[in-house]
Amino acid sequence: MGRKNNVTFSDIAEYTHFSKTTISRYFNNPDSLTLENQAIISDALVKLNYKENKVARILANGKTEFIGIIIPNMYLHYYSEMLNQILSTYETFGYKFLVFVGNENDEIERQYIRELLAYKIEGLIILSHTIPSHELAELSIPIVTIEREDQYVSSVNTDNYMGGIQATSLLFKHQCDIFIHINSPTPTATPAYGRVRGFLDVCEQNQLDHRIIYKDLGSNYETTQKQLQEIIEELEHDYPDRKKGIFISNDTHANTLLNLLFRKHGRLPDDYLIVGFDNSPVSREAIIPISTVGQQIDKLAFEAVSLLVDQMNERKKRKPMPLTEPVHKVITPILFRRGTTEKDGT
Amino acid sequence: MGRKNNVTFSDIAEYTHFSKTTISRYFNNPDSLTLENQAIISDALVKLNYKENKVARILANGKTEFIGIIIPNMYLHYYSEMLNQILSTYETFGYKFLVFVGNENDEIERQYIRELLAYKIEGLIILSHTIPSHELAELSIPIVTIEREDQYVSSVNTDNYMGGIQATSLLFKHQCDIFIHINSPTPTATPAYGRVRGFLDVCEQNQLDHRIIYKDLGSNYETTQKQLQEIIEELEHDYPDRKKGIFISNDTHANTLLNLLFRKHGRLPDDYLIVGFDNSPVSREAIIPISTVGQQIDKLAFEAVSLLVDQMNERKKRKPMPLTEPVHKVITPILFRRGTTEKDGT
Repeated sequence: MGRKNNVTFSDIAEYTHFSKTTISRYFNNPDSLTLENQAIISDALVKLNYKENKVARILANGKTEFIGIIIPNMYLHYYSEMLNQILSTYETFGYKFLVFVGNENDEIERQYIRELLAYKIEGLIILSHTIPSHELAELSIPIVTIEREDQYVSSVNTDNYMGGIQATSLLFKHQCDIFIHINSPTPTATPAYGRVRGFLDVCEQNQLDHRIIYKDLGSNYETTQKQLQEIIEELEHDYPDRKKGIFISNDTHANTLLNLLFRKHGRLPDDYLIVGFDNSPVSREAIIPISTVGQQIDKLAFEAVSLLVDQMNERKKRKPMPLTEPVHKVITPILFRRGTTEKDGT
Repeated sequence: MGRKNNVTFSDIAEYTHFSKTTISRYFNNPDSLTLENQAIISDALVKLNYKENKVARILANGKTEFIGIIIPNMYLHYYSEMLNQILSTYETFGYKFLVFVGNENDEIERQYIRELLAYKIEGLIILSHTIPSHELAELSIPIVTIEREDQYVSSVNTDNYMGGIQATSLLFKHQCDIFIHINSPTPTATPAYGRVRGFLDVCEQNQLDHRIIYKDLGSNYETTQKQLQEIIEELEHDYPDRKKGIFISNDTHANTLLNLLFRKHGRLPDDYLIVGFDNSPVSREAIIPISTVGQQIDKLAFEAVSLLVDQMNERKKRKPMPLTEPVHKVITPILFRRGTTEKDGT
């Protein structure tokens, strides 16, 4: 009997002399049995070489334990590390993840979502930006987004406004003459726009000479380098003898800017201070370690899954009380002071 | 009727006046129906607002279309890009991926594999190194590994030996005086050991003065930096006036080595030539673009899934012919010559 390929509930019932109903209760609601009876059945499963078939269980209780994830790309370390941290919540919550990479094509992402719904996912985590939140809300399943437009769905985001304040205040403390924020054009409805607001508020409250340079910095090194080279020429022309405090959109761009300046001058000139965003590995591995506003990716991921699990659990209650309003959680960023601002022990 | 929540085969049969058997054939073997009848049923699905339930279909035909993936980490860009490329094969093959990150704990990885088997995955792709291939082979499901010990299972690997030849030949062409390979200790049974063999063969065939430095370079920037700093001091002591051709284990380590030399000398001294491995983004984004042996990650991923799909399809045949021997495919690497070897137009 131990060699039989597919051990059924009937086999287990016959072996243990329990009813099939009792065996079913063991799998779906073990606490309704005594510990002694649980042990008898558990021993029988080993003897019979029972292999759990979750697909069959799903049909019985409707719970797939699947969460779908759609991320925009894995080129940026931010997304791969976020995915890593989301997957690691399996240890805490036990949910399994079906993962798709969207590559910024909304039609393909809609196809992915249909596929995920066909597999009866219990919830969905969205990091990509292509599908507006009012459309996501219509899917009528628990959804949490991370760092994207989130008006109609629940979300977890870094406190981007606080990050903008931290970065600009650090440059202010170093008494720069001109404060510059470099970014790709950022829609005001995205959480990341908070960085721009934080920068502007510190500058305006302290009546600082400041400037925002919006320029599409591209998504590969060559484009970014070309765009930043033009910006450097502009800055050196407009502010030749002034101490320039630069807060730039992310660490990948900060690294490119730093390399361009370093190659040109053999070092980072004293009249340049640079702060990036993310605390991604390149900020530590650069030619000079880069000061940066660190996102707490582990906390963002954990809170996102946690928020989703709450919603999924609510649905399993006899009288579910769905959210009437989306919940938006924010996670505080952490400032890292490194070589691009703290020169020679200042 | 269009508002009913769960449209069943009976509903579709009633609406179209076909039998339930015909409806079932539409889903499981559509080519057995005429195109006209397929169109009638397809139109009915739209009218009835039918939502596909793949979980129910799996129970009917046993095919989950799931592939499990276990990767060791997502810190190294190599792994996140590989995962990215594997996930993108969905467009070609239609398989969905359940992803786990192992973090080099074999007991946890065994638990992940049990979980994946409970979900009736059709095949498994393993990139982590912890579980020996003889144990993987005993799982009796289609398995393909990538760049790890693979004696008893099918695999797809970079032609690491060729990569070692390419890197060392490039340094030879530049007439270095001493040839150095820096690596963490590499077991001879792993594909990556081919790099060491390639290095040794070029050196011995050309009677070159050479040396292998095995040192645990660690898995974070600080450790790598400390270890490489010691190596630099040793090299400058042992070979002060000789042209040093260095082939180092990967681009992350090559970047750290380059930064240490650059900070010390304000540039990369003429008596150092460096070649890395992988062609990861840091090789292009470094202070000087780094020469490297590029792994074709897109091809590695596609061939791995393709090899797995062949094995999974074989299992679905009426008389399956499983592989008698593991299949090992190799993908040729591509040499990129950049600033760390091609100085000033040489």
